This record gives sequence, structure tokens and C-alpha cells, in this order.
Amino acid sequence: MFLSKLMPLEDALSIINEAKIENQTEIINIEDSYNRVLAENVVAISDSPLSNRSAMDGYAIKAENTFGFSQSNPAQLKVVGEISAGEKSDIKLKDGEAVKIATGAPIPQGSNGVIMEEYTYVKDGNLDILSSITPGENISPAAEDFKMGDLLLDFPKHLRPPDIGLMAAAGKDKVKVFKKPIIGIITTGNELVMPGKDIKDAEIVNSNYFTFKSLVESTLAIPKVTHSVDDEQLLQEKINELLKYVDAVITTGGTAISKGDVAVDVVNEIGEVLIHGVSLRPGKPFGYGIINNKPIFMLSGYPVAAMVQFDVFVRQLLLKMQNIYKKPQITKKIASRKITSSLGRTDYIRAITDGDFVYPLKIKGSGIIRSMVESNSYIIIEENVEGIAKGEECNVLVYDQLRV
Amino acid sequence: MFLSKLMPLEDALSIINEAKIENQTEIINIEDSYNRVLAENVVAISDSPLSNRSAMDGYAIKAENTFGFSQSNPAQLKVVGEISAGEKSDIKLKDGEAVKIATGAPIPQGSNGVIMEEYTYVKDGNLDILSSITPGENISPAAEDFKMGDLLLDFPKHLRPPDIGLMAAAGKDKVKVFKKPIIGIITTGNELVMPGKDIKDAEIVNSNYFTFKSLVESTLAIPKVTHSVDDEQLLQEKINELLKYVDAVITTGGTAISKGDVAVDVVNEIGEVLIHGVSLRPGKPFGYGIINNKPIFMLSGYPVAAMVQFDVFVRQLLLKMQNIYKKPQITKKIASRKITSSLGRTDYIRAITDGDFVYPLKIKGSGIIRSMVESNSYIIIEENVEGIAKGEECNVLVYDQLRV
Repeated sequence: MFLSKLMPLEDALSIINEAKIENQTEIINIEDSYNRVLAENVVAISDSPLSNRSAMDGYAIKAENTFGFSQSNPAQLKVVGEISAGEKSDIKLKDGEAVKIATGAPIPQGSNGVIMEEYTYVKDGNLDILSSITPGENISPAAEDFKMGDLLLDFPKHLRPPDIGLMAAAGKDKVKVFKKPIIGIITTGNELVMPGKDIKDAEIVNSNYFTFKSLVESTLAIPKVTHSVDDEQLLQEKINELLKYVDAVITTGGTAISKGDVAVDVVNEIGEVLIHGVSLRPGKPFGYGIINNKPIFMLSGYPVAAMVQFDVFVRQLLLKMQNIYKKPQITKKIASRKITSSLGRTDYIRAITDGDFVYPLKIKGSGIIRSMVESNSYIIIEENVEGIAKGEECNVLVYDQLRV
Repeated sequence: MFLSKLMPLEDALSIINEAKIENQTEIINIEDSYNRVLAENVVAISDSPLSNRSAMDGYAIKAENTFGFSQSNPAQLKVVGEISAGEKSDIKLKDGEAVKIATGAPIPQGSNGVIMEEYTYVKDGNLDILSSITPGENISPAAEDFKMGDLLLDFPKHLRPPDIGLMAAAGKDKVKVFKKPIIGIITTGNELVMPGKDIKDAEIVNSNYFTFKSLVESTLAIPKVTHSVDDEQLLQEKINELLKYVDAVITTGGTAISKGDVAVDVVNEIGEVLIHGVSLRPGKPFGYGIINNKPIFMLSGYPVAAMVQFDVFVRQLLLKMQNIYKKPQITKKIASRKITSSLGRTDYIRAITDGDFVYPLKIKGSGIIRSMVESNSYIIIEENVEGIAKGEECNVLVYDQLRV
């Protein structure tokens, strides 16, 4: 009796995966690059460090001068100079000589080891060495971090603090990264009002405005949020206005299946609707289209259905637009009770995962935002599975896995 | 021979855990609250939604009028009006009547069910109902999301998108959150220069400047970074200047053990040094003190040692300052080769975890930033463990677990 044919989840994902993505780049200071995505390879333009350094505060000496000596029979050397960090020295060390040296300072010519300060004793200008050292001891060799020409980071890499430190060490102060995409969000619905006022009887707070702004932020993209009443002309103007500068559009509401509904009708008029209706619960009334080569996601007006549609269809594309590839891990957990489903439909069931077990929530309404707040995971029941028996293993996606 | 007594890791952590934390709050718009931490309980001030709503586009009817009817024998009703979303209607439905209704619109008096539009057929102003419905069908009941007085969110909660949607649904447009702490960072070292210029022989790029700015950003706190040469007077001025407005200070460099070193000496002079030297590798030269009730972390100048010290000692306190409590999970993995350690010392060994196995990196220098870039986890060898045999299970902390 249902008039539209619902599209299997995998087919819908394949279509969305074909969206044409243009990854634009920009050059920024490396100190602003945390959580950005590298758009160039980083190659070392010189060795790092440039020279052998002292790894300790102590004395640069010839290791051979300490052989056979010890605390009870200290070697005696003469201090002939001092090198502090950042200072280049022309001292050439001879047998029986020592140079006071700071951590990080270049090792003087003739020296092949550093004795730590605490193993020395200075008396009447002479230096007692209370331990023997091996050649190379306490010296950080030149180029130990990297050599000229080494590929240090290859793009696209999602930049973390050590990556940024490594870029600095390689002498870079600016870096090419992928631009953050701008995502237009249009909530639709005559009944929707903003919070902070008295809500009248037929009004509903436009929670999607806030949920979807922050969902887009959670993908590291930049949201631009606006609202439209259920009017084709107005919605069309809002979409066209946004398309002047955004990279994709998300709408909520107006996606009812098997009849004309405002979001789908507008996209059909000014672009091409490629998906309308998927065999997913919650989230069946999902639409997807292309206008001027830009993807348009038409989500349900129901808060939970829309959040599930975002997680299933939208999130990965927003990440792909930034060259962020992080596949959420599905884990196996034991169902704490029987879960029913239907063949031919994929279910995303809000649940609480705790240890090896998963507890499906009993609240089911696709508008009940609390169910998303109180759950920490989805149980995913694929379309070729009819249901899960109590005690049986099932596929679980913990929300934390969706974060980047 | 070593002059200072090294403090066991657990003792150092206990001391840091006693730091006096003042969690200040501020009120912000909920649309700016993603990733912030709630500082008040959110209680529902009214039911949501306020009235019974249609869950579908269709016709509000009396369910009893459809009993016994079907596609081959449709019930026939008369359409007496229309209610769109956001519209309040005074219609009182009688037997045999139907009201066209939009998704989200309030159910008119007298109706106890909605028949979906696709199960109806309109002919000559009359409505054929092609299926029977049960009482309550396609009605979202009033207060299904929450009831007046329900505790919706309890503080401190790290706010995620559904939480923000729920606050909006509860009518809140502003929310009290914990202020982000401001963390001063002072890199020290005469040899350090900024990237982007020709590096001369004795110079080293100040990578810590960039690594620590982004490490603080990764905790959601606000970094203020500056640099000082190795001069007590100058460093003291920089610390005092920062302490006017920051909540904690991190220094790098100048923490050598068993001799006076600049960072530790300065903190000792203007505050109290509580820790100097811990039995941790890498990261032994760690200092911690208090000045004017504010915590001061004195980290090694060596990039990797300093990063490990940050992960072990600093990160959790910066999160605690924001009321973010997320305990990183330690997992068991199989060591791919023998790992040596010493009793009485905790080792954090950079490693690559892949599936059930963990592969310790061979590069060990505490300055080798690449080892942090190329690893994805620490193998942690506690101080009462002498080493790990090949094939033995060991404790692993995947870096991803440290993210918030």
C-alpha cells in the first residue's frame, strides 16, 4: 500500500558517496593548525638537530680520559672553557681538558662524551671525574630527529600536537591545510519558535536549530543556520541564498514520503532529487539531492530521526569534504533483551552500552530527544536480520566513535 | 650517586590532585555551548510537547469509525476542516468526520487517531479510509519528551549536540557553563628560535612553543604562550605577569635535577616547589609547585619528555579545572618483543598498537618528536614491574583515549 519504494541503506550511501567534492586549501600559521587537515607533504629541509648536542648539563670531555677511573680513583681534568645553550664555540678539546656544557649546547671539537655534573667535583680549578663514560655518552647526535629530505608528514593528515611540533622543528611557520567547509542549515516548520519565550499551545521549540548547528560543529565544519516557514517560494530563496557561499545544505522538515512536501519539492524544482525515502528506522523520510553540484541533505523534522539521518548519511560526507577519514568502529555486544526488527529495514536503536552488554532503551518516539541524551550507542540491525534474541551478540556503534 | 631522591609517580599524582581548583562560571547562549561544560541543572519548566500532536500528514479521525473497514470496504468520512502545523484549532470532531492535519499540528478535540494520507482517497469531497487504525495511532502524546519538573541534564555535563537540543526544547536560550581556564605557557632556553628563518648552527627551533599551545587547546583550555631566555629575573617577571590572569602555568626547560636550574629556582623563590624529580622515563626532570594558590608545572625542555609529562601530570588537572572527568581507558595488548624496564621506575614507552598486539618503537631519545608522531599509544610499565617478555600482555594507553 505504501506508494514510494524505499531505498536500501547501502544504495543510498553509494549515491551520497558519489557526491563531487572540491577540497579547497588555504595557508595558515602553524600555531593555528591544531585539528586542521594537512594539504601538503612536509619534508625536512635540513637535518635536526644540526649538530651533536649535549643531552645533560655537565662537562664535554674525551671518553678515553675516564677509562679505568672511578669515584675512589677519580680522573683529573682541567676546565678550559664553557659553552651555554644557543652558543657556538670554537674550542678544540685536547687530552686532559674539559669544557663546561649546558643541555642543548653543541659539543666542542675533540669531545666524544659528556659527564653529568653530578658525577664531577670541582676543587681548586681542577675537575674530578667520579665515573667513567663510554664514547657517545650523553650526546644527542646531529640529525637524530630527522635528516634533510625525510618525509615527515604526508597529507591528508589530521594534525595533532606532536605533528605541529614536528613541523616547527622542520622550520615551517606556515602550512597548507584544507579549508573548513561551510554547511548551510535550514530548519523548516510553521510551528517552530525559538526558546526563551512563553511557548503557546500549538508551538514547538525549534530544537533542530541548535542540535544541527552543534552537530555540524562536531564535524569541524562551519555551520550557517537559518529558519524557513513551510513555503516553497521562501524556502527556495533561502536555499539559493545559502548556495552562493556554502558547500552543502542540510534542511530539516518537509520530507514526508508519498506526497509532495516542501523541502523535496523545492529541491526537485531547482536541482535533482536522487534519494527520497530509505528503509531505515528511525529516519525513513530522508531526501538527498544535488543543486549546482552541491549536496543537499533533506532530513526529517523529527529531532531523533534527523539526528540518526545525520549520523548515517551526512557526517561522513562532511568529514570527507575535509579529507578526514575515520571509520567508526562497530563492536559486538550482548543484547540484554530481545529486539524485534523487520527484514528489509535497517534499525538504529538507541541503547546504553555497558561493558559487554547493551541495553536498548524502551522509549522509541522519533521526537524524543531525551533518548539521544540518555543513550550512548546505537544497536544496528541490518536489513537482512529479522531481530536479535536475548543474549545474542549484536552490532553496536558507540557515539564516541563518531567524534573526530 | 644520584643526589636527588626521585618521587614515585603515584605520590606526585596525589600531590597534584590536591591542587585547589576554583571553577568559575559564565552564562552563554545555548547556541555557543557545544563542547562546554554545564554548571547548572536543567529542569523542565513545562511539558514538552504541550499537547497531543499528529505524527504524520493525514486526517485526524475517531479510530472507532474505521473498525472493520479495509481497502476493499473503505470507511467513508466527511472532511470538516484542516489544521496545519503551528495552528491552534477549535474544531470539535464528531462521528463520521475527519480533519486534514499536518505533521506536528495539535490533534483536535474528539479525535483519537490519525490515518496517514497515503491510506486515504478523496472523491467528491468525501474521504475513503482504506485501512483501520487503533486508538492513539500516529499521535505523539503531550509530554512524551519530558514533563514539567523533570531533571533533564545534571551538571557538570560535557555538552553534546542532543543535550543542546534538549535545552532548547526545555525553553532555555542561555545556560550557565564553567569558564575555560587560561593556561600560561613559557618556553625557556637561550638556544631556542622560532621557525621560518635560517637556523644557525647552535640554534634549535622552539617546537615546544607550538606543541604546548596545541596540547592546551586539545584539553579545551585557552593557551597564552610566551618565551623566556634562561635568566631568573626575566623568567620571574614573565611568570608574575602571567599569574595576573591565568589559572595555571606550564614552563618547559630549566628543570635539571640535583643542581640549581632556572625554572625550579624561580618557583622556589616566589612560591613553593612541591615536586622536583619523578621516577618516570622519559620525564624524570619534572617539577611542580604552587604560586598564589595557582599550580605551576615545570616540564622538561626535551620535546618528548615534556609531552609525556603533560600526558601524565598536566592533562587531567586542566580537565578537572573544567569539571571534565574522563578517565582514559588502559587496555591489555600483547608485546611483540621483549621490553626492559627497571624496578622503581614507571616507563611510558611510545608504541604502535595494532589489533591485539603492541609494537614498541625502537627510537628512544627524549627529543625525538617523530617518535610521538609515528606512535599511537604508550606502553605503561609500572614501577613494580621489571620488564615485559615477548608475547606477554602489557598495559597500553592509546593516545586517542586522552582526547575529550
